Amino acid sequence: MDARPAYEALTVETLPDRLVTISVLADRVGPDPSAWTVEEVGDGNLNLVFIVGGDRGTVIVKQALPYVRLVGDSWPLPLYRAFFEYHALTRQAARDPGAVPEVYHFDETQALIVMEYLSPHVILRRKLIAGERVAGLAEFLGRYCARTSFRGSELSMASRDKKRDVALFAGNVEIPAITEALVFTDPYRDADMNSHTDGLEPLVAQLRADIELKVKVQQALQRFVSNTETMLHGDLHSGSIMSTDRESRVIDPEFVQYGPMGFDVGMLCANFLMAYFSQPAHRGEDLDEYQCWVLEVISELCSVFDKEFRSLWRSERTGILYPTVLFEDQGQDSTPACDAVLAGLWRDAWMVCGIEMHRRCLSLAHNADFEDIADTTVRARLEARNLMMGAELLRRAGTLEDAGAVCAMAREFNGKDIL
Amino acid sequence: MDARPAYEALTVETLPDRLVTISVLADRVGPDPSAWTVEEVGDGNLNLVFIVGGDRGTVIVKQALPYVRLVGDSWPLPLYRAFFEYHALTRQAARDPGAVPEVYHFDETQALIVMEYLSPHVILRRKLIAGERVAGLAEFLGRYCARTSFRGSELSMASRDKKRDVALFAGNVEIPAITEALVFTDPYRDADMNSHTDGLEPLVAQLRADIELKVKVQQALQRFVSNTETMLHGDLHSGSIMSTDRESRVIDPEFVQYGPMGFDVGMLCANFLMAYFSQPAHRGEDLDEYQCWVLEVISELCSVFDKEFRSLWRSERTGILYPTVLFEDQGQDSTPACDAVLAGLWRDAWMVCGIEMHRRCLSLAHNADFEDIADTTVRARLEARNLMMGAELLRRAGTLEDAGAVCAMAREFNGKDIL
Repeated sequence: MDARPAYEALTVETLPDRLVTISVLADRVGPDPSAWTVEEVGDGNLNLVFIVGGDRGTVIVKQALPYVRLVGDSWPLPLYRAFFEYHALTRQAARDPGAVPEVYHFDETQALIVMEYLSPHVILRRKLIAGERVAGLAEFLGRYCARTSFRGSELSMASRDKKRDVALFAGNVEIPAITEALVFTDPYRDADMNSHTDGLEPLVAQLRADIELKVKVQQALQRFVSNTETMLHGDLHSGSIMSTDRESRVIDPEFVQYGPMGFDVGMLCANFLMAYFSQPAHRGEDLDEYQCWVLEVISELCSVFDKEFRSLWRSERTGILYPTVLFEDQGQDSTPACDAVLAGLWRDAWMVCGIEMHRRCLSLAHNADFEDIADTTVRARLEARNLMMGAELLRRAGTLEDAGAVCAMAREFNGKDIL
Repeated sequence: MDARPAYEALTVETLPDRLVTISVLADRVGPDPSAWTVEEVGDGNLNLVFIVGGDRGTVIVKQALPYVRLVGDSWPLPLYRAFFEYHALTRQAARDPGAVPEVYHFDETQALIVMEYLSPHVILRRKLIAGERVAGLAEFLGRYCARTSFRGSELSMASRDKKRDVALFAGNVEIPAITEALVFTDPYRDADMNSHTDGLEPLVAQLRADIELKVKVQQALQRFVSNTETMLHGDLHSGSIMSTDRESRVIDPEFVQYGPMGFDVGMLCANFLMAYFSQPAHRGEDLDEYQCWVLEVISELCSVFDKEFRSLWRSERTGILYPTVLFEDQGQDSTPACDAVLAGLWRDAWMVCGIEMHRRCLSLAHNADFEDIADTTVRARLEARNLMMGAELLRRAGTLEDAGAVCAMAREFNGKDIL
């Protein structure tokens, strides 16, 4: 007999009474719920997020909503994504300790996670729009992406454990379906929920007319839906990162799924590139210098990724892929094998990067980097550079030397008057 | 309360009494079990296979053993593979009606499937060694491979159904692990269970010294373990096909897993190529003519695959990949997309083909095509051609024009004196 109450969305008013029995709240916030302060701060699309404070401290209570907030209850979404977020957070914490908020409590029925309150962290995207720098950002993100890529794959995991996880996360259907549609397909067709800045019509038409480009995008989708190389964050943009001026964390892994090892790092780089292209509308005299810093973050992030991945290759290659019995144990260097894995990984990454740059300007969920630009003429001009570089990345993904080549490409497009 | 008896291996003696309550046996064999004839004919490595006959007809009773027959009870294998075989057979029957034996009954606890008795079918490998032809073979196999590839993928299936199946078959761990080790890894290292014909030592050393080649093999393994494109048979060689002189069926899908769309057709072609290379030891005056026929089967099989896949692409592309909204609905031809998918599929296929040609001569499970050659000097000479062509296929997999190029390569190696 299951006597637990059915799912019900929390409110600022009902939260203290409803969560009073969770001992971790008494321990970490305070024993008297009537003394708790509760604030709802969710600015995402899918969840309620409460900051719950008291004399002992502050925690975050995150609860999934049964629909997409952005479009209302016409778009239902299963609550089970909290289950997947919880399992993603515990794995990420094990694979890169300290990179994600600590989980204190999980309630599957209420689709609710009580977790660490990050303060004075703010969403990285806001800092990038405001022209703020974060010390150690590239190193943190490069390491996080490399560690989760490597340690969630059969380069490292036992096959039995990895297959069990693939089966577990294959249950997350509706959330990846959002990515499959909004990211990989809708930008290249006339989808109902699409929108774009006035003036971009010729570029939209150009992308949709480019069959070769659409084939590449769909090849990336084919890999996204059927390549279970590692456990992804699945939505790693600058809105899924919280930072102070010297410390960062990765949040919100509810788009978790098994997918290509280059997916997260590719989407992440796209979001830095969009920060880069949008800067002329946000900066004054410090424009050049700040744009330089953003490109340095991309370049260093990728080089840290590469270094960390190679280090794990040497020290933690305990899975069935590229086993030492085939190389080192036969007195041979396995570096060519690691080179080949990384070449495929970066090809996937730059393709996803280009696609993410398209979808954030053409599909449903735009980003504030561009949306905060009130003057749509300026916005369209900057978005145009971003869109055309996305297409160029898709074309050249398999032959790009390294992130330096990507940054050089960004500088080139940043100087172009496309519209 | 589950009162069903625990698993117990059947014997010729116990089968009638133990299976008397299964109504399909009474219906299809005869109501009096004491009148049944029971013969055990399993020549595979993993199962008991009984032919059960009576006045109404004959059926096959296949029961999984909890260990690998070839090496005895020192290599335990879970009984659940009968569960996966059952689910594979029902899906294959739906995707290519008539291609697999009809299933009459499944008992999960006893790891037992009652299925259609194929007669006068014999194992195709025996026919190939005996120099016999099978009318319609290439057409049947090309169609089977194309239909199961296409219809088990997200080119056709709804994502929800495909993900559910990926999760289901991810539970099949130990059986794919055999392939992962015996096919992709052991041939290229000094594994305990390996064996090869005397005289091949220089070629074995050459393959193990070839780092570039081993990297390619491991890239194929990476795709095998983490690319869930479609539901594979997983062990589609000429011992998994039964034929009369004009009709064929595919049997024994217990190695089923989700994997690359080119896997089955690649392994299948390898087994025809091994039939081809072994013929000089089995034929007399009819050698040239029969070898020609074997190559024609490969070439036609691949061309039927291509044609059938393209036909399904046009008529059944209902999944989320390469959707018509991106091509046809925009007035564009999606043939370049189909070309790209097939190019990747054949690259995977020729890589698997080369690897299968290696493992059948170097790893644990050799095939009768070569093993039946008593004169080891002759055998080594023919196996050498096969091994070197396997390596060449791995090197050229990405750039081969079509199966015609593969057949030309086979003719070339067939004329070489390597040892």
